[in-house]
Amino acid sequence: MITRAELQLLRSLRDKKHREELGLFAVEGEKIVSELLAAGHPFERIYGTGAWTGRRTHEIGESEMARASHFPTPSPVLAVGKIRRDALAPGELDRGLTLALDAVQDPGNVGTMIRIADWFGLDRVLLSPGCADLHSQKVIQSSMGSFARVRVVSAALEEALAGVRAPVIGCALEGRDVHAVGPLADAVIVVGSEGRGLSEGVRGLVTSFVTIPRRGAAESLNAAAAAAIVCDNLRRDAPGRGLKP
Amino acid sequence: MITRAELQLLRSLRDKKHREELGLFAVEGEKIVSELLAAGHPFERIYGTGAWTGRRTHEIGESEMARASHFPTPSPVLAVGKIRRDALAPGELDRGLTLALDAVQDPGNVGTMIRIADWFGLDRVLLSPGCADLHSQKVIQSSMGSFARVRVVSAALEEALAGVRAPVIGCALEGRDVHAVGPLADAVIVVGSEGRGLSEGVRGLVTSFVTIPRRGAAESLNAAAAAAIVCDNLRRDAPGRGLKP
Repeated sequence: MITRAELQLLRSLRDKKHREELGLFAVEGEKIVSELLAAGHPFERIYGTGAWTGRRTHEIGESEMARASHFPTPSPVLAVGKIRRDALAPGELDRGLTLALDAVQDPGNVGTMIRIADWFGLDRVLLSPGCADLHSQKVIQSSMGSFARVRVVSAALEEALAGVRAPVIGCALEGRDVHAVGPLADAVIVVGSEGRGLSEGVRGLVTSFVTIPRRGAAESLNAAAAAAIVCDNLRRDAPGRGLKP
Repeated sequence: MITRAELQLLRSLRDKKHREELGLFAVEGEKIVSELLAAGHPFERIYGTGAWTGRRTHEIGESEMARASHFPTPSPVLAVGKIRRDALAPGELDRGLTLALDAVQDPGNVGTMIRIADWFGLDRVLLSPGCADLHSQKVIQSSMGSFARVRVVSAALEEALAGVRAPVIGCALEGRDVHAVGPLADAVIVVGSEGRGLSEGVRGLVTSFVTIPRRGAAESLNAAAAAAIVCDNLRRDAPGRGLKP
């Protein structure tokens, strides 16, 4: 059972404006909800239809789920979480590795880069206000559960990067060979938007532009692919898992 | 002006089955059509509304475009191309670098990997029958014009890889450190599906499994991100562009 007001609330969470007002977000789908639960994400409430036998589930009917769901074909589970608004600690960006996204608008790219940060064990991801909303279904889903593990902070990059003493590495089409840069223990890697690259204000705070040598004819590389390559180069010295002789 | 039969044909091209029967595909959107034209793609016909002043355009009305378009909000241009069915030449995979995709179902990933192959100047991309259809709007669009530049061949990988003398490098969660593998002038890089990795038959043809050292907690890396990192490592010795001292 679910009240009419609850149903209306769940439906409203597909809009960023309502998510911000209510401080809540919703995520749907068996795979992603299972991954987030496995990563220990503290959901407020989990709604499931009979088909979904997750733990802590508040059972609702399929027709109720169909009305609550954002999907044309509803999944058997919908989880509601609290939006946490983390802020940067003073000097935080000087320690460890940060991936900072400057107006990356594609939610799939934002989610994939949170997953990349998780794979490479980066310390945090920064999202500028122009990025796709962290709490949208698509961002969370493409993070594949890394949403629950990676510290993600929203911040105006020009303010956050001002005064940072660690190297600020900007990914650009022209710069130093990324192969010659790494490895680094402390750095901020800044990736720009798909269409326009890094914004003017952020460019002014970059201490070193790096580029992935281009051997062919493509005009650019997908932002997430570029971020992955830069992370691989900056983490070359760190101990890795999954290796066989 | 556009005939009723032409309109029906254009609409039918959103289905793979009809594309294969007719040997034609359609792609919409100013950005992608412009990129493909800039890359010299030989379209059969380009339909445009008054707002689109591309060359070679067959002008149609906005209401006609709305009926022909696959988009909820039609773009001012729709281009129709011939499907080319390239086959592998004998021994072709022994020469140069090949990126082979084994049942990569996400069209965005397939398009992004064609773009990655273009960036790194690989010689060709192989798509197994289980991959997203090369001639779908989403694959072409996420290739960002690389669709027109990269040689893409559809082939059953187990047949295509049998007898290949060049190293067949399989991307896996456990294998040799990718940093220790490259650079290679001739190789086939095989990337598996998002959910299941490489298929059994293809695994049997891999001569060397490589892995990208994992430093954090993510279970896997996005297929396109992994392909990008492997390409970067295999092409380390090739002359690159965009570098500044």
